[in-house]
Amino acid sequence: MNYDIALIGLAVMGQNLILNMNDKGYKVVAYNRTASVTEEFLAGPAKDTNIIGAATYEEMVSKLSSPRKIMLMVKAGKAVDSVIETLLPLLDEGDVIIDGGNANYPDSQRRAIDLKARGIRFIGTGVSGGEEGARHGPSIMPGGNPEAWPLVKEIFQAISAKTDDGQPCCEWVGENGAGHFVKMVHNGIEYGDMQIICEAYQFMKDQLGMSNAEMQQTFETWNQGDLGSYLIEITSEILAVKENGSYVVDSILDKAGQKGTGKWTAINALDFGTPVTLIGEAVFARCLSALKAERVTASQVLQGPATGIALDKAEYIQALGDALLASKVVSYAQGFMLMREASEHFDWNLQYGSIAQLWRGGCIIRSVFLDDIKAAYDKNGELNNLLLDDYFRDKIQAAQTGWRKVLSKAMETGVPMPAMGAALAFYDGYRTASLPANLLQAQRDYFGAHTYERVDKPEGMRFHTNWTGTGGDVSSSSYDV
Amino acid sequence: MNYDIALIGLAVMGQNLILNMNDKGYKVVAYNRTASVTEEFLAGPAKDTNIIGAATYEEMVSKLSSPRKIMLMVKAGKAVDSVIETLLPLLDEGDVIIDGGNANYPDSQRRAIDLKARGIRFIGTGVSGGEEGARHGPSIMPGGNPEAWPLVKEIFQAISAKTDDGQPCCEWVGENGAGHFVKMVHNGIEYGDMQIICEAYQFMKDQLGMSNAEMQQTFETWNQGDLGSYLIEITSEILAVKENGSYVVDSILDKAGQKGTGKWTAINALDFGTPVTLIGEAVFARCLSALKAERVTASQVLQGPATGIALDKAEYIQALGDALLASKVVSYAQGFMLMREASEHFDWNLQYGSIAQLWRGGCIIRSVFLDDIKAAYDKNGELNNLLLDDYFRDKIQAAQTGWRKVLSKAMETGVPMPAMGAALAFYDGYRTASLPANLLQAQRDYFGAHTYERVDKPEGMRFHTNWTGTGGDVSSSSYDV
Repeated sequence: MNYDIALIGLAVMGQNLILNMNDKGYKVVAYNRTASVTEEFLAGPAKDTNIIGAATYEEMVSKLSSPRKIMLMVKAGKAVDSVIETLLPLLDEGDVIIDGGNANYPDSQRRAIDLKARGIRFIGTGVSGGEEGARHGPSIMPGGNPEAWPLVKEIFQAISAKTDDGQPCCEWVGENGAGHFVKMVHNGIEYGDMQIICEAYQFMKDQLGMSNAEMQQTFETWNQGDLGSYLIEITSEILAVKENGSYVVDSILDKAGQKGTGKWTAINALDFGTPVTLIGEAVFARCLSALKAERVTASQVLQGPATGIALDKAEYIQALGDALLASKVVSYAQGFMLMREASEHFDWNLQYGSIAQLWRGGCIIRSVFLDDIKAAYDKNGELNNLLLDDYFRDKIQAAQTGWRKVLSKAMETGVPMPAMGAALAFYDGYRTASLPANLLQAQRDYFGAHTYERVDKPEGMRFHTNWTGTGGDVSSSSYDV
Repeated sequence: MNYDIALIGLAVMGQNLILNMNDKGYKVVAYNRTASVTEEFLAGPAKDTNIIGAATYEEMVSKLSSPRKIMLMVKAGKAVDSVIETLLPLLDEGDVIIDGGNANYPDSQRRAIDLKARGIRFIGTGVSGGEEGARHGPSIMPGGNPEAWPLVKEIFQAISAKTDDGQPCCEWVGENGAGHFVKMVHNGIEYGDMQIICEAYQFMKDQLGMSNAEMQQTFETWNQGDLGSYLIEITSEILAVKENGSYVVDSILDKAGQKGTGKWTAINALDFGTPVTLIGEAVFARCLSALKAERVTASQVLQGPATGIALDKAEYIQALGDALLASKVVSYAQGFMLMREASEHFDWNLQYGSIAQLWRGGCIIRSVFLDDIKAAYDKNGELNNLLLDDYFRDKIQAAQTGWRKVLSKAMETGVPMPAMGAALAFYDGYRTASLPANLLQAQRDYFGAHTYERVDKPEGMRFHTNWTGTGGDVSSSSYDV
C-alpha cells in the first residue's frame, strides 16, 4: 500500500528505469507478463534493493499508494491498449497510467482523451537514452493529461538526466500526444544525425582511405568542438572496439532496421507539408541499406565514375567536419519547423527552448549544439526558423565552403551522401527568393487547368492561361491531378 | 433505357470524358449536383451531340441499359462514398460503379470489397491526361472487381489514348485498389518529372543566364531525343507564351500545390520501406516552394557561396540533358520498385510491361522513354530493377559524366537541385555493395542493445557487443528505439 510506482515490462528499458527509480529513493513494484523474467530480475540486477515484484496485476495494484502511478514499458501498439484495458477495472478514479514506450503520437492523443473520459489520468511520454540513459538519467518528454503532471513530476525529474547547470531534462511538453510527437521528432533527428555520421565515415573510408584508427581519432577530435555529442562520442568508441584482434565494426552487416519513429517523422512531414528532407533521406538510406543482395548484384553491373584523384586528407577532413555541422543545423531547423507546424495544428503551444533543454542531456541526440538552440530561442521566442538565428547563420556561413567542397566531390567521385546532399539543396532552396515553381505551376495550368497566382497580383487571385489556344476555359475546381 | 453510361460530376475532366465517349458513338447521360452546370454543359460544349442530362439520380438511372454503368468524376474522398450511398438503393445487382477520380487506393480497396458484398461491381480507375487527354484520349488504369472489366472494356479502350502502333493505353491493372495505386505512382513520377525539369530550368536561368527563348529552344531540342515527352514538349511551349508582350511564365508566383497523390506515393514508399527518394524530394520541393514569404526573408539573411565562375553554356546544356535523363531513369526505377513491393504485398500480380504501355500515350508522363521500359520488361519479365536492364545501364553510363558535372557544380555554386541530387545519391548507393550501415548498426547496438548481424555469419543470427565494457547484456527484445 505504500509503493510509489509500478512498472510493467521488464525489457532493457524497463529494468533500467526501475533501478534508476530505486536509486533515487522510490519504491517500485516490477511486473512482467512472463513471471520468470520478473524473478530473474529480482534475483539479479534488483537484488538487495527496495524493488519488489508482483505476480499479478491485482497484486501489483494492491501495493501502490493512491493515486496509483503505473508506467508501461511494453511494445508500442496493441499491447499498450490491451494492458490498459486489463488494468482499468482494478483502478480508481484519478489514478495515473503512463505509457513510456515509443507510441505513435495519435495513439497517445486518443488514449489521453479516452482515459480522461473514464476518470483515469494518462501520460504518454517519450523516454530516450537507451540502456545507459534509462539507468542513469534519460531525457523524458511527457505529454497527456496536464492533471497527471504534478503527480509524477518529482519522480520523473529525479530520474531524468541533468544538464551541466543542473536543470532536469524532463519538463511538461503539452497536452495529449505532444510528448510522443516531440519524442518522434527527436528520433527522426537521431536518424538524421546517425546517417550524416555514416556518410562522413564512408567518405573517409572509401574516398580518403582512412583506417579505423585514423577515423577514431578524427571523431574524437570532432567531439571536442561544435560537433561534440553523444553520437559522435560513441562513434569514436565503436571504431576502437576489437574482438579477437579484429575491429567489430568491420564485421557488422550493413543492413539497418528502419520501421519506427524515423519513418513516422517523415510521414508526418509529408502530411504537414513541411520539407523535412534530411530525415526523409536518412530513412530511405536505411531502406536502401536493407536491399543488400540487390546492391551486391548492382555493384557488379553498374559503373561509377572514372576514379583516381587523390584528395588532400587534412583538407577534406576539415571540410567533412564543416559538412557535418552545416547539415546538422539544417536537420534541426527542419525538425523544429515540423514541431512548429504540429504545435499550431494541435494547439499544443510547444516551447522550443524548453524542448531543446529536454534534449541537452540523457538522450541519444544530446550535444553541446542543443545549448545553442536553447540560446537561440531564449534570445527570440518568436524565432521563425533556426537558420535565421544569427549564431546558426554565421556557423553555416563559416562552414559552407567545406560543405560544398565535400558534396561536390562526392557527386563527382560517386560516394553516396544523400542526407548531407538533401541538407545543402534545402539550404540553397530556402535562401532562394524565386524557385522554379513558377514553371511547375505553368505546367499544371497547361495540362490540368489548375490555375496559378501571379507575382504582380494580390495573393489568392487565380489565373488561367489558354496555353495552346485550343483548350477550353473550364477550370479544374473539383478535380485535382 | 438505352443509354450506355452515366457520368456524375461535370468539372473539366468529367465534361471532356463525356464528349470523348460521345465522339466514339456512346450515348451518355450527364449529371451534376448543381443542375445549372448540367444545363450550361448541354447548351454549350454538348450542343448538337447525343448527350443528355438528368436532373435527378432517379432520372439518370432510368435512362441506362442494364447492367448499368455509372462513372463518378467527383472530388476524391467522402463525396465519392456519399454519392455511392445515395445511388445504391436505385441500382440492381450486377450494376457497375466506376470511380474515375483520384481516390487514395485504400479507399478503392475498401469500396471494391464492400460493394462486391452488396452485389455491385466496382471499378476504381486512374484517368490521366488532364483536360486534353480526357477530351481526346486519356491513359486509363482500371482496377477493382474483375467481373466489371468485360462490361466497360470496350468503351474504356475506345476512349483511351492509343500508342503509335495502335495499342490502347487502357488495360486491366489488378484487383481492388490496384488501378488507383498505379495511378498514384504515375502521379508521383509526374511530380518527379516536373521537378527535375524545373531544376534544369533554374540551372539554365540562374547559372547559365539563358533567356526564355534560348531555354525554349533547348527544351524543343531535347524533345526530339531520348527526353522526348509531353512534359518536355509543353515546357518548351510554355516558355514561348506571351501576354501583352511579356512572358507569362515570368509572372507566375513560384508557390506550388502539393496535397495529393505525390504525397501519397512518398508516404507509401516510406510505409513499404522502398527508397523512392526522387519523388520524396519532389514533394518536399513543392512544400518548400509554398514557403514563399519565409524564403524571401531568408534570401536577405542567408548567404550563398562566392560566385563569379562563367560556365561554358553549350557544355552545361549537354550535361543538363544527361542529368535529366539519368535522373529520370532512377525515378522510374524507384517507382517500379514501389509497385513491385505493393504487388507482392497485395498479391496483385502487376504486369510492369503492360503498365509501361498504359503510360505510353494519353497521360501526363507519356514519353518515348516508356517504350524502352516496356521493351525492358518484354525482354525479361523477371527483371528485378530497371537499372539492371542493359539498355538503361548503358544510358546511365553514357550520361553519368554530365550528370555528375551538373550536380557537382550546383552544389558548389548554390543552385538547389534536390531531386536530381537525390537520384544521383541513390544511384551511387544502389551500386555500392557495402554501405556505412554497419556503423549505424553498431551505434544502435551501442545505445539500444538492438543487436546486429555479421558479414561472416549466416543471415538472421543476431549479435550484441558490450561496447563500453560496463553495459548489461539484456537485449532490447520488446522495445524499439
